[in-house]
Amino acid sequence: MGLYFKARKVDLEMGDGLHVLLNNELTEKEGIKEGQKVLISYRDIELYVDVIQTDTKVAKDEIGLSFEIWSRYSIPNGDRVYVSMFGRPDSIDYIKKKLMGSKLSKDEIYVITKEISERKIRDIEVAYFMACFFNPGFDDSEVVDIAQGMAHAGDILDFKNSGKNSDMKGAFVVDKHSIGGIPAKGVTPLLVPIISAAGLLIPNTSTRAITSPAGTSDILETVMPIALSNEKVVEVVKKTNGCMIWGGALKLAPADDVMISVEKALHVQSYNKLVASIVAKKIAMGIDKILIDIPYGPSAKVKSPEDAEMLSEKFIKIFDSVGIESFPYTRFVMGPDGRGIGPVLEMRDILHVLERNSERPHGLERTALEMTGKLLEISGKSAEGRGYDTAYGFVESGRALEKFWEIAFEQGAKKRVKAADMKPGN
Amino acid sequence: MGLYFKARKVDLEMGDGLHVLLNNELTEKEGIKEGQKVLISYRDIELYVDVIQTDTKVAKDEIGLSFEIWSRYSIPNGDRVYVSMFGRPDSIDYIKKKLMGSKLSKDEIYVITKEISERKIRDIEVAYFMACFFNPGFDDSEVVDIAQGMAHAGDILDFKNSGKNSDMKGAFVVDKHSIGGIPAKGVTPLLVPIISAAGLLIPNTSTRAITSPAGTSDILETVMPIALSNEKVVEVVKKTNGCMIWGGALKLAPADDVMISVEKALHVQSYNKLVASIVAKKIAMGIDKILIDIPYGPSAKVKSPEDAEMLSEKFIKIFDSVGIESFPYTRFVMGPDGRGIGPVLEMRDILHVLERNSERPHGLERTALEMTGKLLEISGKSAEGRGYDTAYGFVESGRALEKFWEIAFEQGAKKRVKAADMKPGN
Repeated sequence: MGLYFKARKVDLEMGDGLHVLLNNELTEKEGIKEGQKVLISYRDIELYVDVIQTDTKVAKDEIGLSFEIWSRYSIPNGDRVYVSMFGRPDSIDYIKKKLMGSKLSKDEIYVITKEISERKIRDIEVAYFMACFFNPGFDDSEVVDIAQGMAHAGDILDFKNSGKNSDMKGAFVVDKHSIGGIPAKGVTPLLVPIISAAGLLIPNTSTRAITSPAGTSDILETVMPIALSNEKVVEVVKKTNGCMIWGGALKLAPADDVMISVEKALHVQSYNKLVASIVAKKIAMGIDKILIDIPYGPSAKVKSPEDAEMLSEKFIKIFDSVGIESFPYTRFVMGPDGRGIGPVLEMRDILHVLERNSERPHGLERTALEMTGKLLEISGKSAEGRGYDTAYGFVESGRALEKFWEIAFEQGAKKRVKAADMKPGN
Repeated sequence: MGLYFKARKVDLEMGDGLHVLLNNELTEKEGIKEGQKVLISYRDIELYVDVIQTDTKVAKDEIGLSFEIWSRYSIPNGDRVYVSMFGRPDSIDYIKKKLMGSKLSKDEIYVITKEISERKIRDIEVAYFMACFFNPGFDDSEVVDIAQGMAHAGDILDFKNSGKNSDMKGAFVVDKHSIGGIPAKGVTPLLVPIISAAGLLIPNTSTRAITSPAGTSDILETVMPIALSNEKVVEVVKKTNGCMIWGGALKLAPADDVMISVEKALHVQSYNKLVASIVAKKIAMGIDKILIDIPYGPSAKVKSPEDAEMLSEKFIKIFDSVGIESFPYTRFVMGPDGRGIGPVLEMRDILHVLERNSERPHGLERTALEMTGKLLEISGKSAEGRGYDTAYGFVESGRALEKFWEIAFEQGAKKRVKAADMKPGN
């Protein structure tokens, strides 16, 4: 919200800081208080200034500029000055406080994540905040507050009690998430149908490609719509127990998108930031239990087993603090999956597995069933050590294939295709 | 330098990173090498990508977008994509390295200050660099490199051997600088004429108001031009031994202006950054010996005597490393000068002192003569403990007044005015 005013030089010295005069009648109408900060803009100048109220010194359409302002910035009498009433966001002071080495309170962190979500602070200011993730760093309780703050600044979806049968009331909402960096994109489209067929709620969100040729979302999109509204997602999960959608369409934890765009400038992300982002999105999706896939190796995001272990412990601790039970699944990987040949051929591989065709990729099948089995064990749907076999049974019997298409049609797929129909270039 | 290209989706997977194809003929003409990074812009998307050369895959006016790019960023075939050939600046990697906790080499720091000067990196990226001043922080050798890098990325002025008489060859180039935060603006216009009358070279630059009603530059501007070109400044000093100009017009250490604009977003500056800025400007002005005025007190920039002492030692050490002898002049101050009533009345006070009028402000006179005396002692123009008296002699005899107007006229003043002529509102 902003207004244009006519500049008027006034002979006032205010000492430290920058001040403007606004007419009392105007400030009352706009709900501006004395001492409040507003942002004034003139040509390429942007300044946060303190408001002083006056009855007589300026008219309602004028802004009185104290000596400090008009002398330094050469704003002539009568020129138009734009005043944004938002003022200087509190988060600026909190970010500064953190940069100077102090711990932030929960309230302060919530203000920061909210004002980032609302784009009340500029990218330069967000960059100072992101720098704090490396130095001086955030402790675990701050990371929890950041994750909560990010989640609660956006929508929180509720899948509890949304199972299709009355005996699903109160069922676990589970999920699987990979920290990324190594393609394992075939896993989700195999895991979600099995888990939901087994009677658990699994509202899964995936991403589009970042460093690999195709993200899970890109692959799924070859056969079903993946950009669903918040309402539609809840409906799909209510009917089928699961979904396989693009998280980007849900606008959950909106501060994260802003923060990622600022991180991209420097191509760097801290582990704490990585954890906060993932935890925030899972809070927003109402998840109870989650399997976190942490691939490590020379070409992965996490290089060493020690880092994978440290990150596992961090996930467990931070997730626990927000009431989500997490199970890190660390695995050594040598390099990107050799089959990274685009979304259509990757979707064909997945359908080959579900259709039990002889040319199915056995490596992908094994990885997916191992993770699915683990998630079944965690959720009590399978005895320990028996998860893989249980998962295998769902695929071998064709129940996973049926569930895959059930979900796809609820999401809006128009026709059922076979692996043999999937040809690149269409 | 940049060009528009027609987007063309190509079926290429490059694994990690983002790649584009450009025609060989084009890359040869533009001097782009395979593997070089360029910045592509499409709508609000800006990406640094690696160039791959091709003879056949794209035409000269096309840019081939690998799968990673067109699938993630939804860039349609045929749309115009802007390519900036500058590529990803090296300083991004060095800033990232510092943020991760490593010390930077001299070469790396020089690249950063140069690319900031040339505006090759964006404000977000500069903000990450500025955050490093607080955490992890720079050590003294890095601060020296930053100051040198900032200075050498711009012009370096040479006043050596520019004295008016042959016996001035090799004379000291001296200066006085206040770290600011407390007005002591009358000092410079009294100090410079005395020092130059005493036979030293003093090319003084001052600033416009930042937090006070009027900066020294604003005050001087009421009676003489202060925005001089680099060439004109050298000429004035050659003729008069001194100058009193606005530093902002010289564009010295240009990275500093960019860094200050980014610091302003958070209203915070570290001591190391303050020292680096001042040292950089003094290197650029070719100063040999400098008196640094460090006022401290509850309302000053520096609050405690301990901080003033620490800052003094830092100045001495960093200035020494760049071959400048510095003399910190710490003093306790209670608050801003009560006479802060705008440039015209402050100029009148100064002229009252120079003209030896009975209504002259004795407090201002004493402060100015103390600092001037100290500088005379440092430069060997006065015995220790005798500087104040020597300075007083220059004022009392009228030689300071004559020198003031001599400098003013060389800078382009049109008429000599008396204190009694100075009236506000003109």
